[in-house]
Amino acid sequence: MLGIGAEEYHERQAAMRRLAARSGLEGVVAWSRGGSAQDRYADVYHLTGCYQHQPFLPDVQGRWQARGHAAVVLPVDGPALLLTDSAAVGEPPPAAPLRTAPDLVAAVAEHLRGAVRPGRVGLVGGAAMAAPWWCRLRSVLPAHELVAADELGWAARRVKSAAELRLLRASGALGGQATGAAWAAAVPGATEAEVAAAAVAEIVRAGGAYYGMGISSGARSHTYAACDPAPYRAGRRLSAGDLLRFDLYGSVHGYLFGLARTWVVGAEPTTEQRRLLAAVRDSALAGIEAARPGQRVGEMARRCQEVFERSEFAAHHGLPPQGQAGPWGHGLGLSFEPPWVSCEGPGAGERIEAGMCLVLGHRIAIPSVGGAAYQDGVIVTDSGPEIITPGL
Amino acid sequence: MLGIGAEEYHERQAAMRRLAARSGLEGVVAWSRGGSAQDRYADVYHLTGCYQHQPFLPDVQGRWQARGHAAVVLPVDGPALLLTDSAAVGEPPPAAPLRTAPDLVAAVAEHLRGAVRPGRVGLVGGAAMAAPWWCRLRSVLPAHELVAADELGWAARRVKSAAELRLLRASGALGGQATGAAWAAAVPGATEAEVAAAAVAEIVRAGGAYYGMGISSGARSHTYAACDPAPYRAGRRLSAGDLLRFDLYGSVHGYLFGLARTWVVGAEPTTEQRRLLAAVRDSALAGIEAARPGQRVGEMARRCQEVFERSEFAAHHGLPPQGQAGPWGHGLGLSFEPPWVSCEGPGAGERIEAGMCLVLGHRIAIPSVGGAAYQDGVIVTDSGPEIITPGL
Repeated sequence: MLGIGAEEYHERQAAMRRLAARSGLEGVVAWSRGGSAQDRYADVYHLTGCYQHQPFLPDVQGRWQARGHAAVVLPVDGPALLLTDSAAVGEPPPAAPLRTAPDLVAAVAEHLRGAVRPGRVGLVGGAAMAAPWWCRLRSVLPAHELVAADELGWAARRVKSAAELRLLRASGALGGQATGAAWAAAVPGATEAEVAAAAVAEIVRAGGAYYGMGISSGARSHTYAACDPAPYRAGRRLSAGDLLRFDLYGSVHGYLFGLARTWVVGAEPTTEQRRLLAAVRDSALAGIEAARPGQRVGEMARRCQEVFERSEFAAHHGLPPQGQAGPWGHGLGLSFEPPWVSCEGPGAGERIEAGMCLVLGHRIAIPSVGGAAYQDGVIVTDSGPEIITPGL
Repeated sequence: MLGIGAEEYHERQAAMRRLAARSGLEGVVAWSRGGSAQDRYADVYHLTGCYQHQPFLPDVQGRWQARGHAAVVLPVDGPALLLTDSAAVGEPPPAAPLRTAPDLVAAVAEHLRGAVRPGRVGLVGGAAMAAPWWCRLRSVLPAHELVAADELGWAARRVKSAAELRLLRASGALGGQATGAAWAAAVPGATEAEVAAAAVAEIVRAGGAYYGMGISSGARSHTYAACDPAPYRAGRRLSAGDLLRFDLYGSVHGYLFGLARTWVVGAEPTTEQRRLLAAVRDSALAGIEAARPGQRVGEMARRCQEVFERSEFAAHHGLPPQGQAGPWGHGLGLSFEPPWVSCEGPGAGERIEAGMCLVLGHRIAIPSVGGAAYQDGVIVTDSGPEIITPGL
């Protein structure tokens, strides 16, 4: 049975209390934004299973503040309280008592004053807390020092439970199925929008949530498509021989999938296209092969980098500009998350553990040649890497 | 031809400079989040036509900050500069020179120091600026006082240009078309997810962007469906006679549509259902009828409220709890925006003008009876209200 049991939520709350106490905090406020795709819902959802569908509405002085958000106040020695602006949180019920208030900031402050001892309080989910709310919280809580504590959320979610791994497998499978639907629709004469619609419909029909995609084709396959919230060029029709770059992300019960593929539409790849596709695929798969317990994150990135540098593509076209596509991968769960898979920098020395879930891959963009992307999800197990986004 | 011309962007920049100067500011920083649906993209998009597809990635100390965001620095007496973390901004090119940097906060601060005279600087788009970035900006800009100035963005976008009205009409029409596809799919035996997929596929196929929906049916038609980022209960099959509540929002070239309908699936409505549907529809249409130049916002809301209170539904079931569904409507453009259509409170005394675009309607949720929603988009013209979401 897919899903997180009530007991697991309470274990998570207990684990967060321990993390907070170990950091010298009197409690934490977890803060999340809900109400649309690719929000920052992880911190509250992780602790309570609550996802808020109310879309964000800008603050109206005296009427509401932080609409479309949710918070959990969790003292190190007391019960969790979930606060949001709507009682309509759906089913199953969240794993904490719920208080609703149109002014979420005031409600969080009021509860915190009574429930959390004066002292340092960690804010988990700071990227979803806009500056005006932070400033107001600080000004109305003179006895509490609010400190950034996102690292507690990352630490709590780094290694996944068995129930989470089942959800991530189901999510990866749905991502693969939707990508397959895109590929089936990618015939000469189809528009980028038609290809996109096939993938999105597949996700929604199966009960998943669609978050975003990158799609580009032909001479512009190296770049994002449009300066427009719609990521496809609606009228752009595919021709036989076009490169089609496609990446997709979404979730099943909040757990993300992410994968990328590049194809040649309606024709055999040319030599140059084949080199490009092999370079992105082989470098990703080399990194995945190294995703084993005890391996360092930086080593994994170096494997990707080495295979890419030794590719026929690199021999003929050189290496793309440094840093253009970000890291070689990252953690995956209720959000894109650490570790950031790079040869150097923070986290490169960190060791991989069984139960972690990663996406590994890359996007190459060389304007004169074209662009391609390849990315897979992988679960680290004691017996090796388990790819959870099926090959296409 | 649909779209905003380069000249209009430069006029918008000039208008924002005038607004800023009138507020005693030396310049503004417009700030937006991009990379996924229902972001806060309005402030930067409005000034430059730039939408950033890079999804947000949490900050990594020393490597990047505020990934997936974009900013415009606009001095009152100098040229605009667009800053983002990716050069791949797509086409058409944005209406300002572009500088890219992985640390967007540092780049904004550096440019601002050189380009904007010391003094007060307005931040437009504060809801997309997370607290850590605000705190850092303030600390590295000792000669500039950053002040919240969201009202400048609302003021600049309150009355729409002819090009914007064309986009809003196209967007409303697409919303209607997608809602029609949902209704066609809503046959007994279909799942909520299949109905949702029909609507989303229609939006994407036509080149629009899907942002979110509310869908619920049967005994739970009064509430949001699931405690899950997917807003539908995937396995819930419709039965003949079920109420089906459906609202949808998305955009065409960034300009939003929003509408809501409620139907009875595969059967004639019962007397009680008919009363419910008539109450939500008639109250919305009464407000729309009042959406005329010179009318006060609060009067429009009172028309909705009066018709609802005099409905057969209210006579039999009373009024739902106060405030459960928020205001009777709001402005619509590149975001949900003022005016908030309420009988009282800030803005109730404001006068409607030709060229404004609103959505008007309501969601009624009475657990023992069921729930329903009705909402239309409307453009205010000198000759009266023009409904832009076609009737279904």
